[in-house]
Amino acid sequence: MDILSYQSDFITFLESQKFSREPKNLYEPVDYILRLGGKRIRPILTLIAADVFSNDYEKALPAAFAVEVFHNFTLVHDDIMDDAPLRRGKETVHEKWNINTGILSGDAMLILAYQYFENYEPEIFQKLAQLFSKTALEVCDGQQLDVDFETRNDVTIDEYIKMITLKTSVLVAAALKMGAIVAKADEEQAQHLYNYGLNLGIAFQLQDDYLDTFGDPESFGKQAGGDIIENKKTYLYLKALEVANGTDKEDLINLYNGKQKNNTEKIATVSTIFKENNIPEETHKLIEYYTDKSFESLNHLNISDKHKEGLRAFGKNLMSRKV
Amino acid sequence: MDILSYQSDFITFLESQKFSREPKNLYEPVDYILRLGGKRIRPILTLIAADVFSNDYEKALPAAFAVEVFHNFTLVHDDIMDDAPLRRGKETVHEKWNINTGILSGDAMLILAYQYFENYEPEIFQKLAQLFSKTALEVCDGQQLDVDFETRNDVTIDEYIKMITLKTSVLVAAALKMGAIVAKADEEQAQHLYNYGLNLGIAFQLQDDYLDTFGDPESFGKQAGGDIIENKKTYLYLKALEVANGTDKEDLINLYNGKQKNNTEKIATVSTIFKENNIPEETHKLIEYYTDKSFESLNHLNISDKHKEGLRAFGKNLMSRKV
Repeated sequence: MDILSYQSDFITFLESQKFSREPKNLYEPVDYILRLGGKRIRPILTLIAADVFSNDYEKALPAAFAVEVFHNFTLVHDDIMDDAPLRRGKETVHEKWNINTGILSGDAMLILAYQYFENYEPEIFQKLAQLFSKTALEVCDGQQLDVDFETRNDVTIDEYIKMITLKTSVLVAAALKMGAIVAKADEEQAQHLYNYGLNLGIAFQLQDDYLDTFGDPESFGKQAGGDIIENKKTYLYLKALEVANGTDKEDLINLYNGKQKNNTEKIATVSTIFKENNIPEETHKLIEYYTDKSFESLNHLNISDKHKEGLRAFGKNLMSRKV
Repeated sequence: MDILSYQSDFITFLESQKFSREPKNLYEPVDYILRLGGKRIRPILTLIAADVFSNDYEKALPAAFAVEVFHNFTLVHDDIMDDAPLRRGKETVHEKWNINTGILSGDAMLILAYQYFENYEPEIFQKLAQLFSKTALEVCDGQQLDVDFETRNDVTIDEYIKMITLKTSVLVAAALKMGAIVAKADEEQAQHLYNYGLNLGIAFQLQDDYLDTFGDPESFGKQAGGDIIENKKTYLYLKALEVANGTDKEDLINLYNGKQKNNTEKIATVSTIFKENNIPEETHKLIEYYTDKSFESLNHLNISDKHKEGLRAFGKNLMSRKV
C-alpha cells in the first residue's frame, strides 16, 4: 500500500480527463475546480480499498475520479450558498465566472460523476450508481441540516454529529466501499470498510473544526477562525455551551448572535473561552473516540495484517495533519 | 393507446411518491414543484413508448417519473438563472423559499431521478442511466448555449435549432427511448422512436416560441411577449433579421438592445414587424417541416398501424395546441 503512488496515479488520471468539449463556458469551470488541487483523500481511499481486496487498483481509477468530481461539485454549489470568495486560496467558480455558471457547471459535474461508472459492467455499474445516489442524497441532507442549524439555537451535539456524518463522512465511507465494489469484495466486507470510513470521516471533520480555530493559519491555508466569524455551531461551540459557566456561556451566545464589528477581537475572546473550558482537549478526546471506533472495523476485515496496518497508518496520518 | 389513461395513471403514481422525508426544508420544495401541474408530456411519452413495444406500460412508470423529476429539476435551476418569479402561474421555488433552497433542492431532484432507475434489473438500469446521463448533460449544454446567445449578436438559425435541440428535444426523444428500453425493444427500433421524438421536440419548441408572441395570453398562461421583453433570440427574431428590409432590421436590432421603458409598445412594434415579414407563416412552415420529419421515423417502426396512428395523432395534437 503506497499512498504516494495512488496519489500520483490518480493525478495522472485526472490530468488525462480534460473536459475540452463545448460549450466551453460550461466545461472550463469544471476543469478549473478539478485542477485547484486538494488532498485527494477520497479518491485515494477508493484506490486503497480496491488494492486491499484485489491488488488491481487501477481498475478503480474511474470510480475514484467520480468521487472526486462529485466532491468538487459539492464545493462549487456550497461555495455559492456560503457566498465564499476563495477556495484553496484561489477564486471560487461563481466568483471567477458568475453564480449561474456555478450552478450549471456544478450540475454538469454531478452528471459527469455518474458517467464515470459507465466504465464498469452492468452489475458493478448498478451497485456503484446505487451507492453513489444514496450517498449524494445524504450529502444534500447534511448540507440542508447545516443551513437549518444557522437559524436554530437549540442544536444538540448529537444533531451536529449527525449533520457532519451526512455532509462529510458518508462520502469518505462510500469512497472506500466503491473501491471494494470494483474489487468485487463481498457485501459484508465492503460494509466493514464503509464503517471504517464513516467513523474516520467524523474524526476528520472534528479535526477540521479544531484546526479552523486552533490550527496554524500559515499551514492550514484558510482564514483562521472562519467558523467563529460565521457563527458556526461546531462541536467546539456546542461543547463549550454545555460545559461553560454562566458568564462564559452568556458571552458565547452574545458573540454568536449578530455580526461583530471586530472579528479579530471576537476570535480572540471565543478562543480564550474555548481554551479555559478545555474544549481543545475535549475535541481531541472525541476525535480519538471516533478514530478508535473506525479502527475497530478493521478487525473484521479478511485482509492481510500489512493492509490493516496501512489503513490504520492512513487514519493516524490524517488525524495528525496540520492542514 | 389512450393518452388520458396514461396521464391519469402517471398522476396517480406521482401522487403516491410524496417526499415526506427529512430534512423537510430540502424535500418540501421538491413536492411543491412536482405538484404545480404541467402537461406531463414527457412521462406520457415514456408510457406510450413502453405500451407500443410491450403492452405493459405500468412497468415504465418509475422511468416516466424519473424523466418528470429531471424536467422539473431543470425548471428549478433555470428559473434561478432567469430570475423568474412565476412558474405555471405560481411562485417559483427560489421565490417561495430562497436561491440556496432552489439550488440544493434542485440537486436533490437530479439525484432522485437517477434513483428511480433502481427499480429495474442491472442491464435495463445501466441502459436507462446511460441514456439519462447523456441526455442530462446535453440539456446542460443547451442551457449554456442559451445563456451564451444572450450576449452574442451573430447567432445563426442553425445554431438556434441546435440549442433548442439540446435544451428541449433530446429530453423528449430520451423520454420515448426510455419507454422502449423498459419494454426491451431492440436498439434500432428504440432509435427510430428517439428520432421521432427529437424532431417532434424541435417542432414543439418552435410552437412554444410562436405562442409566446402570438398565442392567446388567456389560454397560454404566460405573459404574452415574454420572449420579446427579454430580447430572446428565438427563431421568430432570427428569421425576421434574415428576411426584413433595412429599416425593419435596424428597428429590431435597436429594440433588442438594452431594456425598453415601455414593454407594451415594444411587444406591439416587434409583433408588427414579425407579421409584416410573414414570420408567423415562416414559423408554421418550419414547424410542419420538423413534424413531417418526425412522422417519417414512424415508417421504420415495427409496430401496429393503430399505434403509428396514435403517435401521429399525439404529435398533431401537440402542434395544434394553444397552450
